[in-house]
Amino acid sequence: MGRRQAAGNRRGASGTPPEPRGARDAYNFSAGPATLPRPVARRVREEFAAHAGDGASIVEISHKHPRFTGVLDTTVALYRELTGLPEDHHVLFVHGGARMQCAAVPLNLIGRSPTRTAGYVVTGLFAQQAQREGARYGTAVTVAGSEGSGFDRIPEVSVRDCPADAAFLHLTSNNTVYGTRWNDFPRDCPAPLVADATSDILSRRLDHGRFGIVYAGFQKNLGPAGTALVTVRDDLLGHALPETPRLLDYAVHAASKSLDNTPNTFAVFVLSLTLEWIRDQGGLAAVERTNLAKARLLYEELDRTAFYRPTAHPDHRSVTNIVFRLADESLTAEFLERAREEGLLGLAGHRLVGGVRASVYNGMPLEGVRALADFLREFARVRG
Amino acid sequence: MGRRQAAGNRRGASGTPPEPRGARDAYNFSAGPATLPRPVARRVREEFAAHAGDGASIVEISHKHPRFTGVLDTTVALYRELTGLPEDHHVLFVHGGARMQCAAVPLNLIGRSPTRTAGYVVTGLFAQQAQREGARYGTAVTVAGSEGSGFDRIPEVSVRDCPADAAFLHLTSNNTVYGTRWNDFPRDCPAPLVADATSDILSRRLDHGRFGIVYAGFQKNLGPAGTALVTVRDDLLGHALPETPRLLDYAVHAASKSLDNTPNTFAVFVLSLTLEWIRDQGGLAAVERTNLAKARLLYEELDRTAFYRPTAHPDHRSVTNIVFRLADESLTAEFLERAREEGLLGLAGHRLVGGVRASVYNGMPLEGVRALADFLREFARVRG
Repeated sequence: MGRRQAAGNRRGASGTPPEPRGARDAYNFSAGPATLPRPVARRVREEFAAHAGDGASIVEISHKHPRFTGVLDTTVALYRELTGLPEDHHVLFVHGGARMQCAAVPLNLIGRSPTRTAGYVVTGLFAQQAQREGARYGTAVTVAGSEGSGFDRIPEVSVRDCPADAAFLHLTSNNTVYGTRWNDFPRDCPAPLVADATSDILSRRLDHGRFGIVYAGFQKNLGPAGTALVTVRDDLLGHALPETPRLLDYAVHAASKSLDNTPNTFAVFVLSLTLEWIRDQGGLAAVERTNLAKARLLYEELDRTAFYRPTAHPDHRSVTNIVFRLADESLTAEFLERAREEGLLGLAGHRLVGGVRASVYNGMPLEGVRALADFLREFARVRG
Repeated sequence: MGRRQAAGNRRGASGTPPEPRGARDAYNFSAGPATLPRPVARRVREEFAAHAGDGASIVEISHKHPRFTGVLDTTVALYRELTGLPEDHHVLFVHGGARMQCAAVPLNLIGRSPTRTAGYVVTGLFAQQAQREGARYGTAVTVAGSEGSGFDRIPEVSVRDCPADAAFLHLTSNNTVYGTRWNDFPRDCPAPLVADATSDILSRRLDHGRFGIVYAGFQKNLGPAGTALVTVRDDLLGHALPETPRLLDYAVHAASKSLDNTPNTFAVFVLSLTLEWIRDQGGLAAVERTNLAKARLLYEELDRTAFYRPTAHPDHRSVTNIVFRLADESLTAEFLERAREEGLLGLAGHRLVGGVRASVYNGMPLEGVRALADFLREFARVRG
């Protein structure tokens, strides 16, 4: 299949030295933590190189140092600009990834419901985990779900099924494990919408004005793991339950601009580079077009033959997590092994579902997707 | 004062290329996030360089990938070995730094007290913050404190003053802002001792067997900010209050080996390098000797003249945070500016107390301390 040999001749862009030999030759389709855009990774390397001697790289200085607060301010401003965030929404950096927000969201909001009730749309593993954590603080009602069909789709949601006094309606905008995504979000819901957007944040435009809270773990499209980005509408602050740990109270982070304690400064730094990269690509609309083209390449290849079986309902296919099985499942291990030999890494499906998953977040370049599409075709030709 | 010129001629160790020009010439005394040991910073750079092309550096792969779980296992094993951790203590990596543990500790332990009571020794800013967070979940009794003398010392503690039914007795082993540290920890306390060891973890040997829980934010002696290392005795697990967020329940982290959700993989990776560096120094006893020598160099210089006024009581001086004032405080700004010109960075005292603070964690080499000692002497000579 010869791709590695051909790829071995690639050189760095003019003016830059070639990448270390052997390293150029692979693409990492990990579902997360996921590959960074290469220009972002290069700037991370440069930061450590620039401060090799003085021990004052961005992870080695105070979070109150103007160099870091400058990065933080830039990051917030650029996020606002790129997403068109409404002015009355705050941008927060909160410890613990999306999973910590599964507790933080009810801790902050459920006190607004006289019956401590919240609604959940249950579309997969992370939606289930959010609901379970919500049940710790009140009644977590399933408003709609797709477990009956193996989470292969986004269910119809009637906002009338959301309890009238719900503090919020929670959904997962893209489902990493099952490879589905929302195209149209619920309208006219009396409760504020809350979205876990971990696996499609910044992969497409999103009308933040329709959400009370959007949260996302960093480790797919934003940067390194351990932190969440949270946008929250101003009127939703100040209702935290008394037992809310200080660092899970969104009002504390809003008042301190995420500096109440030391934030994950490395994560914020990498996000600043990621946002600058998105701006340089032409903004979110351009990134969204590229992502649609990447996903189309793969789905077209998968649909060309009965050899592959994409698992998501065609109307709800994820653009960032392309999940499929081989019709002859006994070939899956061989498929993954041959892919690995070809430098196509991280393609095993989530352990709950098996099969194959190609995660093609912003950091995956079109040429990586082309290499995978070529491999899909060739593997089906040889083994089909 | 010419130090920069002389330093400009330094070269890298034999066989390695010289560091980038100009960068070798400074030392960063930031209180945290703090300078990494240079060999650790070098290995971070190498990691990003090695994976420049394949997009699969340690921050870009799944936390379930054998490469990361290998790093995690190594880190835990090496931490156990270097600290002599008793077998019935778990090593956990928990989101949010030490400040998040100010909530997590009472959430996990206070249910063991029938009256929801805990004791606190209040020796500075972070002790106060821990107590305030503890008061959210029960009665947080001041067992002893040194606020009356401006937190210049560690108070006498009579364990009889600790309520008999206290769930724990909390102390701060080193006080970053005021530059004091404990030398002898309370004995015969019926309640388990809990230590916030953020600013002296791994700077000296510590008998973990005397503590129920030791926790430490990463950003001083362990690695980049955003995560805490927590060691907890097995019998203290399983008592978390029902309102404990899942990711603050130490039992969840112990059962999952810190993989219940995606940990801060970068922080764990850097810690693994830090621990290997400590091992290569000869272990904790050797590192402790070096740190004592570093602190002695500075205190001797400060004590030589009335020009400087170290603020901590001589019996409780911190080895990691050397805090002092200039007798003529009108010279402080000039002192800091001249130091900065000499490449001695991050020396301003905490905003609560002003003055000067030299943080000399493990990452600060002896030559950096010598450069600061020389500067102290020369500045006193010229301006004294």
